[in-house]
Amino acid sequence: MAKTPKRTKKKQRPFLVLSNDDGFRAKGLNVLIDTLRPMCDLLVVAPDGTRSGMACAMTATIPVTLQKIKKERGLTIYACSGTPTDCVKLAVAQLLRGRRPDLVVSGINHGDNSSVNSHYSGTLGAAYEGVMHGIPAVAFSLCDFSPDADFEPLRPYLIDFVFKAIAAGLPPLTCLNINFPKAQKFNGVRICRMGRTHWNNEFTKARRPGISHQFVYWLTGDRINDEPLAQDTDSWALENGFIAVTPETLDVTAHGLITGLQDVF
Amino acid sequence: MAKTPKRTKKKQRPFLVLSNDDGFRAKGLNVLIDTLRPMCDLLVVAPDGTRSGMACAMTATIPVTLQKIKKERGLTIYACSGTPTDCVKLAVAQLLRGRRPDLVVSGINHGDNSSVNSHYSGTLGAAYEGVMHGIPAVAFSLCDFSPDADFEPLRPYLIDFVFKAIAAGLPPLTCLNINFPKAQKFNGVRICRMGRTHWNNEFTKARRPGISHQFVYWLTGDRINDEPLAQDTDSWALENGFIAVTPETLDVTAHGLITGLQDVF
Repeated sequence: MAKTPKRTKKKQRPFLVLSNDDGFRAKGLNVLIDTLRPMCDLLVVAPDGTRSGMACAMTATIPVTLQKIKKERGLTIYACSGTPTDCVKLAVAQLLRGRRPDLVVSGINHGDNSSVNSHYSGTLGAAYEGVMHGIPAVAFSLCDFSPDADFEPLRPYLIDFVFKAIAAGLPPLTCLNINFPKAQKFNGVRICRMGRTHWNNEFTKARRPGISHQFVYWLTGDRINDEPLAQDTDSWALENGFIAVTPETLDVTAHGLITGLQDVF
Repeated sequence: MAKTPKRTKKKQRPFLVLSNDDGFRAKGLNVLIDTLRPMCDLLVVAPDGTRSGMACAMTATIPVTLQKIKKERGLTIYACSGTPTDCVKLAVAQLLRGRRPDLVVSGINHGDNSSVNSHYSGTLGAAYEGVMHGIPAVAFSLCDFSPDADFEPLRPYLIDFVFKAIAAGLPPLTCLNINFPKAQKFNGVRICRMGRTHWNNEFTKARRPGISHQFVYWLTGDRINDEPLAQDTDSWALENGFIAVTPETLDVTAHGLITGLQDVF
């Protein structure tokens, strides 16, 4: 009896979970979907509106909802009432149906998530949540807050970076924070450390209209670069027209302090 | 003419900014206030209600409010409509009146903020915000979620740890995440690294009462210890009755990956 001929195993398309913090309607996310869809299967779970500055916040005291926006071959989109972190948690806990994602991809954020901003960013929050579940992750951000920001110059890099991140096999607890300067052409790619910056004058005090003896405080402020001459930071790369790729770790232990503190406590 | 006799400069009492994520009425914060007040000047800026799981979230799209709750000699308390991060940002930007805090102290949280929980914790978010402004910080948490948790066993340690943290002079970008097990007596203090844990089964799907074809998702879950035998983690310390002191850094660069990634990108 003749053997059944071996079938070449068809290489599976990468399976990506996408999220962001600007909401499922945001241009940045939809550029990401359009660009990646020809090569990848996509499960998109994104907030139903803007969740900027939500960091790793999760919804602990009220329930969240999921609304199916689209389901086509290779593309499913849900809108979630919660935070970016909730979105990725829900994807992992409720929507994977046994298929393990190759990568969580978050963004493209409308705005800079380099240096200290990384700590506040919901875009990074979504990426971190993938990492916390053992899934490698990449966060993309463009240094342009405009809802109609021009993402076209980024397109050739998105697929390249996603496939490189999958192939590189990021170690456990790590992800990539990738920021693009606002430019039509980039001077290249720099692998960076997180720059030291801080925010100053963070609130504008204003009288409350109608109840003028009451004050409200609007988040504003200026970001100050505390090491403007250091050329190995994400801040420097962006200021000089480079794409900044910053590897980040979720092990935030200050390992260097452990021995010294044993003498103090 | 006789010289004016030198006056011994009176040593100033430490000045602490206090916050938390359980709100200004929470027992944990009020235990902290009562315990520290005899030795320290306190500026308390805490949320006006519970903000659990808010991480470093900040209020970016609406204004926040501040309500003065109490002003006595050495103790001022404000309630804020925003997040723990907003509270510390507002303290720094609007309320210091030129006096630099010696320490930001956050907590005492009702619940465990060790290992992966640190990333979601608003208690840590408040501490991190101090660090981002160059102020050393300590976060205190008790592994007991009860609103009426027993904080008495912690009292002797609070003042000791606060003064040690000030005296130690934590380096820039670092803070201490201090977790107490739920116990009447502790087996000692361990300086730890952040344990590797992850959350599983994170949502319970439930029908929405009244609209039974709709589902909602409640955050639940079990935390799994991925390295139960490692004795240098905060998780191990707490499971074995020790107070866990974990030094944390806000430089989340994965420095070890920089060289390798230069060959990839």
